[in-house]
Parts: sequence; C-alpha cells; structure tokens
Amino acid sequence: MSDLTTTVSQYLDIWNEADADKRAAAVAELFTADAPYIDPLVAVEGHAGFAAVVAGAREQFQGLSFELHGTVDAHHNQARFQWGLVTAPGTEPVAIGFDVLVTDEAGKIKAVYGFLDKLPAA
Amino acid sequence: MSDLTTTVSQYLDIWNEADADKRAAAVAELFTADAPYIDPLVAVEGHAGFAAVVAGAREQFQGLSFELHGTVDAHHNQARFQWGLVTAPGTEPVAIGFDVLVTDEAGKIKAVYGFLDKLPAA
Repeated sequence: MSDLTTTVSQYLDIWNEADADKRAAAVAELFTADAPYIDPLVAVEGHAGFAAVVAGAREQFQGLSFELHGTVDAHHNQARFQWGLVTAPGTEPVAIGFDVLVTDEAGKIKAVYGFLDKLPAA
Repeated sequence: MSDLTTTVSQYLDIWNEADADKRAAAVAELFTADAPYIDPLVAVEGHAGFAAVVAGAREQFQGLSFELHGTVDAHHNQARFQWGLVTAPGTEPVAIGFDVLVTDEAGKIKAVYGFLDKLPAA
C-alpha cells in the first residue's frame, strides 16, 4: 500500500515539475520503458511520449498544479485515485481526473489508465 | 464507445452464467490468453484463472447476480464502470465494485483491474 501511495505521489510530482530535464529523469526513473499512458485526450507509450503529454498539459494550464484529490486506493500492483488541477493547494479543483496506475514487480509504473471526472470550464 | 459497452455487458454476462462450460467458452472468446484479472481479493492470469474466480464468486454469492451499476465510461481501448451484486434486478446492491477493462486491438479484454466500493455486510 504505502509503496503505491509513494508512487502516486512521485507520479503527481512529475506533473508539477517545472524543469523539463528533471521531469525526463523522473519519468525514466519511475516508468518502465514502454509504459502506455492513455487518457481521454491522448494515448502514448514510453518515456518521451509521456514527457510530451506532461509538457503539453503544463503549457496549457500554466500556474496551476496537480494534487491528489481524496485518497489512494491500492492493492497488489495497482492503485486508483483522483487528482485535482488547482490554482492553489487545497482549493476547489478546476478539473478532476481519475487514474489507475499499474506497477511491475520492481515498482515501476507499467501503465496509466486515465479518465476525467470534471472538465475545466471553457 | 459502443464496442466497449458491449464488451462490458458480455463481461458481466460471464459472471451471471450458471453453466460452467458456457462460461469457459465465453471467457475464451472474450479474453486474451494471458489477461490478468486483479481485484482486492485475487490476482490471476489467463482463462482458467479467471474462470475459477468467477466460479468461486458464484459459489459464494448463490442466487445473486451482477449488473452494471451506473454507466460505462470508455475511450480508446479502456472502460471504467461500477457493477452491483444484487438479489434482484434494479435493487440496492449488497456489494458494489469498480473495474477498469482494457482491450487489445481486436477488442479482446487484455486486462481487468478491479476495486471494491461497497463490501457485502458480514
């Protein structure tokens, strides 16, 4: 449980990391080489693909940050959780998403299956 | 979308199929050979493993049936939905679970990641 909660925290940290080199290093550390990341808007595989998705989201939502919304529900090698896109920590999220993370035996993320629960207002 | 909704329906039908041979045939038809099925209680891979899980659940919850609880949210090759374990169609579920199904390019289920939202009363 605690391992997966840590993994979720490290995963969200990547979305909040401003430095592209640090993001790339963290992605390489945290994900298996060919891990799919699939949400309603994008479907990519591998480190460069996921890093590009994060870079795009950061560009689109400048000044906002991603935080855990609620708690992490985890068992075996999988975790589900909601994340919120917020203007400041603890504020009402402008968008809420939901991810299932699946890790391999070494604890690396081998897949992210994402869904959206609340879309940003247009 | 509609393909995945159909897949979810076929998936739930397996849980409700009383005939073990028909279940095995449906599992072979619907799942890839090595698909993992992982929920809080069990983690198996492949047709025989999943069929055994369904047989065990049917034995434990005799007379109850599984139905879609709410709607299917699907995109790309993945779907999320809640299921309810009910004593009769449309009644308050005694247990509610949540699954993410992932399909391959041919539409076969290649993974099920399950969680529990409401446990049966002891």
